[in-house]
Amino acid sequence: GPVAAARELRCVCVTITPGVHPKMIASLQVTVSGPQCPNVEVVATLKNGKQICLDPEAPLIKRVIQKMLDSGNKQN
Amino acid sequence: GPVAAARELRCVCVTITPGVHPKMIASLQVTVSGPQCPNVEVVATLKNGKQICLDPEAPLIKRVIQKMLDSGNKQN
Repeated sequence: GPVAAARELRCVCVTITPGVHPKMIASLQVTVSGPQCPNVEVVATLKNGKQICLDPEAPLIKRVIQKMLDSGNKQN
Repeated sequence: GPVAAARELRCVCVTITPGVHPKMIASLQVTVSGPQCPNVEVVATLKNGKQICLDPEAPLIKRVIQKMLDSGNKQN
């Protein structure tokens, strides 16, 4: 499947983008460390199609993820 | 790319798995609502290769994501 294909046997992130506006993010993938990579990796796919890596330990990222998770609440 | 391929033009989640042990998760993808789907979707790929959907509004999921993000700290 497409998500399994994303689990290639190497680290994905080379450079980390320090910040991003939550509204720019279409989807975000968090991958724990494993045989493919010793690091936790956070890859964001932006609404313009670009992919960027984010720092999993940055407080900003935790807020961005909370916003994404909560964004469905508007419809209630 | 592989992550772009995961953004198919439909909702991915049909059934929601109510809970999962964080240690079972290899990676997790959060997709905000958009033209492909009106819902926020959280798809977890488990270490056994299975994919499950999780409830983005469940407090459990927020804790699971925090654990995943913090799991790299062990190496410091």
